[in-house]
Amino acid sequence: MKKRTNSLDALFNPSSVAVAGASPGKSGQLFLDSILASGFKGKVYAINSKGEDISGLKAYRSIKEVPDHVDYVVCCIPAPAVPQLIRDCASKGTKAVSVFTAGFSESGSEKGRQLEGEISRLARETGVRVIGPNCLGVYSPKVGFTYTSDFPTESGDVAFICQSGGNSVYTTRAASYRGIRFSKVVSYGNACDVNECELLEYLTNDTDTRIVAIYIEGVKDGPRFYQTLTELTKRKPVVVLKGGHTSAGAKAAASHTGSLAGSDQVWDNLLQQAGAIRVYSLEELVDVLVTFSLLPVPLGRRVGIFGGGGGAAVLGTDDWARHGFVLPPLPEAIRDEIRSSVPTEAGLILNNPIDLSSFAYSERFYDLIKRLLTYEGFADLSVIHIGFGQAAWFSTSAFDAEINLFRDAVTKIRSEVSKSLALVMQYLITGWDWQKGIEDLQQGCAAAGIPVYYSMASAARAIDHMLQYYEKRRAAGTG
Amino acid sequence: MKKRTNSLDALFNPSSVAVAGASPGKSGQLFLDSILASGFKGKVYAINSKGEDISGLKAYRSIKEVPDHVDYVVCCIPAPAVPQLIRDCASKGTKAVSVFTAGFSESGSEKGRQLEGEISRLARETGVRVIGPNCLGVYSPKVGFTYTSDFPTESGDVAFICQSGGNSVYTTRAASYRGIRFSKVVSYGNACDVNECELLEYLTNDTDTRIVAIYIEGVKDGPRFYQTLTELTKRKPVVVLKGGHTSAGAKAAASHTGSLAGSDQVWDNLLQQAGAIRVYSLEELVDVLVTFSLLPVPLGRRVGIFGGGGGAAVLGTDDWARHGFVLPPLPEAIRDEIRSSVPTEAGLILNNPIDLSSFAYSERFYDLIKRLLTYEGFADLSVIHIGFGQAAWFSTSAFDAEINLFRDAVTKIRSEVSKSLALVMQYLITGWDWQKGIEDLQQGCAAAGIPVYYSMASAARAIDHMLQYYEKRRAAGTG
Repeated sequence: MKKRTNSLDALFNPSSVAVAGASPGKSGQLFLDSILASGFKGKVYAINSKGEDISGLKAYRSIKEVPDHVDYVVCCIPAPAVPQLIRDCASKGTKAVSVFTAGFSESGSEKGRQLEGEISRLARETGVRVIGPNCLGVYSPKVGFTYTSDFPTESGDVAFICQSGGNSVYTTRAASYRGIRFSKVVSYGNACDVNECELLEYLTNDTDTRIVAIYIEGVKDGPRFYQTLTELTKRKPVVVLKGGHTSAGAKAAASHTGSLAGSDQVWDNLLQQAGAIRVYSLEELVDVLVTFSLLPVPLGRRVGIFGGGGGAAVLGTDDWARHGFVLPPLPEAIRDEIRSSVPTEAGLILNNPIDLSSFAYSERFYDLIKRLLTYEGFADLSVIHIGFGQAAWFSTSAFDAEINLFRDAVTKIRSEVSKSLALVMQYLITGWDWQKGIEDLQQGCAAAGIPVYYSMASAARAIDHMLQYYEKRRAAGTG
Repeated sequence: MKKRTNSLDALFNPSSVAVAGASPGKSGQLFLDSILASGFKGKVYAINSKGEDISGLKAYRSIKEVPDHVDYVVCCIPAPAVPQLIRDCASKGTKAVSVFTAGFSESGSEKGRQLEGEISRLARETGVRVIGPNCLGVYSPKVGFTYTSDFPTESGDVAFICQSGGNSVYTTRAASYRGIRFSKVVSYGNACDVNECELLEYLTNDTDTRIVAIYIEGVKDGPRFYQTLTELTKRKPVVVLKGGHTSAGAKAAASHTGSLAGSDQVWDNLLQQAGAIRVYSLEELVDVLVTFSLLPVPLGRRVGIFGGGGGAAVLGTDDWARHGFVLPPLPEAIRDEIRSSVPTEAGLILNNPIDLSSFAYSERFYDLIKRLLTYEGFADLSVIHIGFGQAAWFSTSAFDAEINLFRDAVTKIRSEVSKSLALVMQYLITGWDWQKGIEDLQQGCAAAGIPVYYSMASAARAIDHMLQYYEKRRAAGTG
C-alpha cells in the first residue's frame, strides 16, 4: 500500500485536469465545458473512447495517451470501466479522481456494491484519492476549478461538503446570489474513499476556510465523525443539514448515496454535543451561512426594527419574539427627533417596530436609519423590513427611482457604521415588472456585504442560531 | 336609532361610489384611480375641498353637492372631519363608508379614542355602516370595486377578512398569482362599527364564498367571536392567522389597530375548539388557501413523489414524513413499465420518490406521470417536485423548450385525471434569464387549476392542514 499524503490539497489545487468520458452531448462534455468556461488555471485534457475532438480540444483515447502529467481526473465513463481508470491514473501519477458515474452501492445491487468495493480498495492500494462515486466532485474557485459554469469565480471563506450533487449546486447558487463566496465545495456522493471525516479534518486546519457547512446523509464511522466534528467546531462555526432524518427519508438516503442514515435522536444528540448548528432545510442552511458570513455578531438580543406597514410590524414582532429577541421601546429622544424631522403623517407608528411606510425610500431615509442605528443603547441589531407587495399603490417608474435611493442609503450606512444591520426583503413571487428593481436592490445589498433574508421569520431563526452559538461558547468559556 | 339591515350587502354591491378627499397626488386619488381602472360597474364621484377636477372627473366640494345617490363612500379626509362626513352620508342615504383615515384609537391618544367613539356612535345612530377606521376597505370583484388596481377582475370563492390593509394587499396578490380568486376581501382596521363577527356571520350564509381566511389582531367580544366562528367552520373551512400572538406582538397590535390581542394560549384553545385551521404566517395562509381552492381532497395520506435529483428526494421525503404522510414503495409493475419505456440510465432511482432527473421535461413525461397518477392503489396524492437550481447544467434555450413541454404535459394530465396532483417548484431567487420560463410554468399551472407550492415542506404542511380538517370532521361525524 502506497503512503498517502495526509493532505487533500490535490483535490483543491490541481494543476492539470482531464475529463474521462468527454463525449459530445454527454455529461462529460458538460464537465469539460464548465471547466473551460470558468478560467481554470491549469491544463485541460479531454478523453473519450473514439478519440473524437471535443469543445475545441483534441481528445485522447485513454489517460495513458495524454502526453503530459494529469493531476486530477473527472470520471464520466460507465461504472464497470472505472476500476481500470483508477489503475491507469495510478500509473500516470494522477493524484485524485472524482467519479461522477453512478450505479454503485446506491443502486442496491450486488454488482454495484462489488464495483464500489473494488475502487475503494484500488484507492487504498494505489494512493489515488477517489471522490465519490456518484458525485459532482470539487469546486475550488481559487484555481478556477468547477463542475458548473455559473458558480462565482471569486473565492470566499465558506467551505461546503455535501453528500448530494444537486443539493450542492442549489445551495452554492442560492448562497452566491446572496453574497456568499466559497473557499471550496465538495460533492462527495458515496464516499468510498475520501469521506466526510477526512474532509472535516482538512477544513479544521484550512486557513482559507472560516465557516463550514455540511449536508450529510450518513456516516460509516460514527465515533470518528463525532470526534472530528467536535474538533472542528472548537475552531469554526459548523452548520449541518442531516438528510434522511425521518425513517422514510433514511430509506431514500440509502437509495441515493447508499448511506446508513441512523436514528434522528442519535443524530440530534451527536450534533448538539459536538457543538454544531443543526438546520432542517437548504434554505435555512443558506440563511445561517449568510448570517455568519456577513452579519457582525450582535452584542445581545435587543432588536430595533424599521419597517413599512402596521400589519407587517405585528407579524414581524411575533417572529422575532418567538426566537428570543426583545424589542426595546423607541427612546423618547428619537421619537422627538423623528417628529421634528419628518412631516407628521397619520399612520406613522413611532414604536419599535417603527413604521416608516409613509416616507420609506425617500432621501430622508439615510439620515433616519443612520441615526437609529447609532443611537447608543437602543438595539444590538437593526433590521430593515421591506414588505414588497404590502403597499397598495405604486408606479413602477417611481418605485425604481425610490428603490435606488434606498439601496444607496443602506449601502452607504453599511460602509460607515459597524453595527449589526440586516435587511429583510419579504419577497412576493410575481411576474411584475418591478421584480427587476427588487433583484437589483438585493444584489446591491449583497455586494455591499449586507445580509439579506426573505422573511422576518427566517432572519430571526438564522440570527438566533448565531447568538446561540456564541452564547454556548461563552458558557463553555471558549468564546 | 335607525333599523339596520342584518345584511352587509351594501359593502359588497355598491351601485355608486364617491371618494372623499380625492385630491391630486394624495391617497384619495389613488383610491379613485384604482376604482376607475378596475371596471367598477356603477357611477364614481370625486370629492375634494377645493372642488378641483381630478383624474378626468368633475369634483364636488362635499358629498351633499353630488347630484345623484351615493351608495358607498371611501373616506380619505383628516380624522377630525370624519364625523361630519358620516352625518352627511346619513342625510344623503349612503349605506356604507370605509374610512382609510388613521389617527383614531390606534394612535393611543385620548383625542383619537374620542373621535373613534364618535363615529362608532354615529354609525349606530344613523345606520350608515362604517368599515374601519384605519383600513383600506372592500375588494368586491363581482362589481369591479377595489382599493388597488392590480387585483384580479374575476371573482372566486375565497373570502378574506383582514384587520391589516397591508397584509390584505400582500395576501391577495400572492394568492392571486397562484390561481386563487376571491369573492370578497375586507380590510377592516379598527373595527369601530362593522366588525369581524358581523363579517363572519355574513360569510356563513354567503353563497359566493366557499372558503374563508382571517387575519385578526384582536376581538372586542370573545364569546361572540367564538360562537360565530364555530358556526362558520361547520359550513366552510376557515383559516386564521392571529397577529400579535407573542406579548411583544400584542403590543405592536395595540399600536396598529388598537386591538387587545389576548393571550396566545386562549387563542389557541379558542381556534382549535371552534374548528378553525390556525396558521402562523401570510405565506402559510396562502399555501392553505391554494390547497383548499385547487387540490381535490386526497383520500388518504399515501403520497407518490416524482422528482428530480437524489438529494432533493431525501430532503423531500423528510418533509412529507414529518407531516404524517407515508410513501408507499413503487409497485414492481410500475418499475418494470418504466424500465421498458425509458432508456436505462445510471442514476435513475426507481423508488418513491422516483428520480426523474435524467429524463424530466421530455416528451415521455406525459405518459409516465399519467401512468403513475392513475395506477390504482399506489398513492392518494401525487406530487411533482421540480428543484430548479439543483441541475448542474442546462442551456436557457433548451430549458425554455423543455419547460413548455413539461407545462403542456402537466396541464393536460390535470384536465384528464381527477386525482390529487400538486406541483412543487423549489424556487431559487436569482436574476437569471431562466426565471421567466419558471414564471410562465407557474402561471400556466395556476391557470390550469394546479396547486403550486414553493417548497416540499410548505406543500406538506398545507396539505396536512387540509387532511386534518377532514379527519376531524369525519371523527365528529360532520364530514
